[in-house]
Amino acid sequence: MNIVIIGLGNIGGSFAQAIQKNTKGHDVYAIDVDEEALRTAEKQGLIKKGYTDPKDIIPKANFILFAVYPKVIVNIIEEYYSLFQENTIINDVTGVKRKVIEEIENKLPPKVDFIFGHPMAGRENRGLKYASSEVFIGANYLITPTKRNLPDNIKWLKDFLTLIGFSNITEVSPEFHDEVIGFTSQLAHVIAISLINSDDISRNTKQYTGDSYRDLTRITNINDKLWPELFVMNKDYLQKHIDEFKLQLDKLSTAIEDEDIVTMEQMMVESRRRYHDLHSLDMSDE
Amino acid sequence: MNIVIIGLGNIGGSFAQAIQKNTKGHDVYAIDVDEEALRTAEKQGLIKKGYTDPKDIIPKANFILFAVYPKVIVNIIEEYYSLFQENTIINDVTGVKRKVIEEIENKLPPKVDFIFGHPMAGRENRGLKYASSEVFIGANYLITPTKRNLPDNIKWLKDFLTLIGFSNITEVSPEFHDEVIGFTSQLAHVIAISLINSDDISRNTKQYTGDSYRDLTRITNINDKLWPELFVMNKDYLQKHIDEFKLQLDKLSTAIEDEDIVTMEQMMVESRRRYHDLHSLDMSDE
Repeated sequence: MNIVIIGLGNIGGSFAQAIQKNTKGHDVYAIDVDEEALRTAEKQGLIKKGYTDPKDIIPKANFILFAVYPKVIVNIIEEYYSLFQENTIINDVTGVKRKVIEEIENKLPPKVDFIFGHPMAGRENRGLKYASSEVFIGANYLITPTKRNLPDNIKWLKDFLTLIGFSNITEVSPEFHDEVIGFTSQLAHVIAISLINSDDISRNTKQYTGDSYRDLTRITNINDKLWPELFVMNKDYLQKHIDEFKLQLDKLSTAIEDEDIVTMEQMMVESRRRYHDLHSLDMSDE
Repeated sequence: MNIVIIGLGNIGGSFAQAIQKNTKGHDVYAIDVDEEALRTAEKQGLIKKGYTDPKDIIPKANFILFAVYPKVIVNIIEEYYSLFQENTIINDVTGVKRKVIEEIENKLPPKVDFIFGHPMAGRENRGLKYASSEVFIGANYLITPTKRNLPDNIKWLKDFLTLIGFSNITEVSPEFHDEVIGFTSQLAHVIAISLINSDDISRNTKQYTGDSYRDLTRITNINDKLWPELFVMNKDYLQKHIDEFKLQLDKLSTAIEDEDIVTMEQMMVESRRRYHDLHSLDMSDE
């Protein structure tokens, strides 16, 4: 199969690495504006050949992975509409789904099968040099099938994702995806940014941090050209989650102010219960 | 030296392990209400002998480490006042300092030297079985010397803590300790608890988490018998930090609502700058 990765940054590069490591018989190509990244990936054997012009390789693609900004996906689909092969399977990695599907699906060539997806794998730093197939191992992958998608292609994609390391590949609706990701990913980023930006830097806080602060701020090395757009596209769910979080925060803050030990204990017992559930641990086992 | 660890849970046990691994010539004893933990530690060679009654070993102690709740420290000092040796050095691990020092210092026997401290090392799970000296390696340790402390004893304690693995042992005032820890540790815990408790569990969120959510909720396995008291003892600083965090949260939430990309980008550029500063990274290096 000819696989074309569009966008050879951290996530695209990690896919290239994971395909190289775990599969046989595929030829992997990449499209990027960054020629240096393409040449590096060629030298490392991560890809067979890199292209800066999509029209040179899109016609040969059997599977295309878009690892670029949502707007770039739309632009490429529109501009190279007539060049896509029939039956090409496409997947993306965008963190919101409703708006992206809405914008892209009615622009697709008729026989191209775009199965929208979202790998839930860490990308703390940007760029090809930080790419690593390791981040996919055991990670969750959400796909949001639409009526256009062929069941055989969905099956192929799931098998392929399993092969390159993902653990739970779950089919969900675009609505559910955006609701739950608005919580587990977007709200987490909103909180982390707010926390680190509320630091009084004159204190030189760095010297006084433990694991807690480092954990809660690890995701603040955020791509400021991508995330504002993702937040806006999902703002209905994200605002709902921010409000629910603030209710809990205010409840705890009030309990602290009132020295209401009972309420604090209840909230902590509940948080511990949820922690144990999240990690599938038995609470008596500590 | 005869070292007595009071409280042989995760943190006390980690100290015992770190002393055993990294020092020679000390005899380590422990006091705990949990006889099973004492016998286990004896069998593992972590301690020479364990006691359930403080009066059997406190008179022999040259260095005492309190790894128990603040109230238990006060009780033991009051009850065994006359049994402490002259020149015994004492250290604790309590996460707040002003109130604890205020309560304890005027109850101390005259020639005992209590140097108050706070190891900033992870303790995700409770109990001796999770104890590990590894968590101290490279960790920060704050000490809050008072006028009573002898410079020679402070120096001894710092050398000892360095020997067992800590990296930056910093002297700060109790006020500064509580201010900065109210931010890096307490606010982080308040946020993590509020986040996990705001989850809609009917969604079975666990299946849809990536590293972000797991990072932000790792510290929610919190000791509900200890932390409410710590929060209350530091509520002035903690509330100030919660308010400052909420200002940033509201600013970001408003920008999302208004689709104000410029403000969001500015906040993210700032959070990235702070992330790089925290990790001593060059921002161009990505």
